[in-house]
Amino acid sequence: MKVKLKDIAEATGFSVNTVSHALRDRPDIPESTREKIKLAAKEMGYIKNAHASSFRSGKTSTISVILPDITNPHFTIVFREIEEYFRGVGMTPMFINTNENAEEELNAVRHAIEQNSAGVIICPTQDNKDSLRLLEKSSIPYVLIGRRFPEEKGSDYVVCDDTEGAACATESLILSGHKKIAFVGAGELISSGRERLLGYKSALAEAKIPYDDTYVYHVDLKSAPSTEALESFLSQISDATAIVAFSDSLAFRIIRSLAKLGRRVPEDVSVIGFDNVCSDYIFPTMLSSVSVSKKTMAKEASSLLFKKISSTTAPPEHIVLPTKLFPRETTAKRK
Amino acid sequence: MKVKLKDIAEATGFSVNTVSHALRDRPDIPESTREKIKLAAKEMGYIKNAHASSFRSGKTSTISVILPDITNPHFTIVFREIEEYFRGVGMTPMFINTNENAEEELNAVRHAIEQNSAGVIICPTQDNKDSLRLLEKSSIPYVLIGRRFPEEKGSDYVVCDDTEGAACATESLILSGHKKIAFVGAGELISSGRERLLGYKSALAEAKIPYDDTYVYHVDLKSAPSTEALESFLSQISDATAIVAFSDSLAFRIIRSLAKLGRRVPEDVSVIGFDNVCSDYIFPTMLSSVSVSKKTMAKEASSLLFKKISSTTAPPEHIVLPTKLFPRETTAKRK
Repeated sequence: MKVKLKDIAEATGFSVNTVSHALRDRPDIPESTREKIKLAAKEMGYIKNAHASSFRSGKTSTISVILPDITNPHFTIVFREIEEYFRGVGMTPMFINTNENAEEELNAVRHAIEQNSAGVIICPTQDNKDSLRLLEKSSIPYVLIGRRFPEEKGSDYVVCDDTEGAACATESLILSGHKKIAFVGAGELISSGRERLLGYKSALAEAKIPYDDTYVYHVDLKSAPSTEALESFLSQISDATAIVAFSDSLAFRIIRSLAKLGRRVPEDVSVIGFDNVCSDYIFPTMLSSVSVSKKTMAKEASSLLFKKISSTTAPPEHIVLPTKLFPRETTAKRK
Repeated sequence: MKVKLKDIAEATGFSVNTVSHALRDRPDIPESTREKIKLAAKEMGYIKNAHASSFRSGKTSTISVILPDITNPHFTIVFREIEEYFRGVGMTPMFINTNENAEEELNAVRHAIEQNSAGVIICPTQDNKDSLRLLEKSSIPYVLIGRRFPEEKGSDYVVCDDTEGAACATESLILSGHKKIAFVGAGELISSGRERLLGYKSALAEAKIPYDDTYVYHVDLKSAPSTEALESFLSQISDATAIVAFSDSLAFRIIRSLAKLGRRVPEDVSVIGFDNVCSDYIFPTMLSSVSVSKKTMAKEASSLLFKKISSTTAPPEHIVLPTKLFPRETTAKRK
């Protein structure tokens, strides 16, 4: 059974009130008594009840990190970096997964509020803004990570330069002699989906390669991935010699599907992803990719949230971080 | 700002006391009034404070899921399945990562207790039993998943048959004509590490292949992976035609290292992993593997925990689930 104040009082011979004041380090209790009670509490395995404390102070040390897909290595790396930051300041981040589902997102935010989380970091599904409105109604500070609502000037966010990143990936393929370059995106609902498509288009325009939407395909992040649909698209663009993928997860799926169609990577087709998950994961195929430093992104979002937790009057910040190209073995010069 | 009982009282014209009783569905308030107040509360975005409620009831709807490595796809799949179960019963699982660090594990358990979690699912680092003892001191039910302390008869656990799984993987290689079979394990501290090594040895013994520990290498899950050490081991056992790996993550690293040494998989070396992460992930290289059904394991652990949350007198259960072989493209007959 959980150790109660009463148990410590019995063990030490002090009153429950004295024990309670001593554990909260109140100056009305002599220091030697406080030390004695605290030592006894520690030895007995007493854990203060955060709910009881937060009932008074309105704060806990929990940071709720609400991300759309725990099975995407990009998000697990980002979470681990957020974790490192908050553990350093004595707080505990907990991961809540939304599966790219707006209803689950709203539930996650409700839960974070009910738990009196000190703050929330969220990568929104962007289906609607219900969870943002709910966060604003509560007094819990939040920071968006990875995706933004450009029209929501009052929201803090940390994103990477998605447009520039996708442009850079596309340009690297153009510089390697590729002209027929396909794009496998994630729709235009989420900001990163929209901006990466924009980057792809702008790099083509820059190189005077006409944009052709038969070379563009979008997967639906919100439903189970359809290998058949992806393969059907890839077989229709068999003259493409290079593909820019919205994410590394998607790039892996594309390489797998290309193999089934008898097309080798990079000999027949170059494939470049986005997120650089091979920074932290070792896979048999090490992907060419483009990405922000995930450590920097996590650190910026965390320290921004920490600032907002410490000062409710901090003005909103909009941070856009640069991306970098990581050429590896899935891209090559066009033959 | 967060909507308070006072705000609802002002908006509806009832007293704070009436609003409070209505929201808790107390029969002393006429049903029509309760409905009116509940509707207003909903429209105003009122969220009951779980901390305030749990201060009275001692329970929240949080399930803390404490796992050792968020970057291992095996654990993210398991978490997603646990999530599905608990969302179905109206509870919210939150992931706390320990990075295979006993101190972080103890912190995670402390946090789960402070948060008044309804229950805990934990895959322990097994460095010590401090977190188990702490959980037992608290009144929070817990279930071990994936790893067990055989001597702790009072702890509930759900694991897979690790010995049988590794024996089955090894046997499949023997049946394909392999005789020089290496094993890359994860030490003998954690139960799965110990039992998988045992399974490997027993399959060799069964086939009358002498056990030779120069063909066995252990990685340290608790420190950053050393590619150099792994490559050095692999270059020393260049006559091995097959390798059994402790996990799929490790199998991916092995395949990568073999490629650097100029050895092709499966043409020169067959590699089989453990966990079957390719059930849910699509990678360019689809791994041969052995695994329990992760869905079944997560469901068994979740329903066991739910049972313990509902009834504190439920006797401890020890569940060992069978594994299955998934031969894919990284294993082949010996030439």
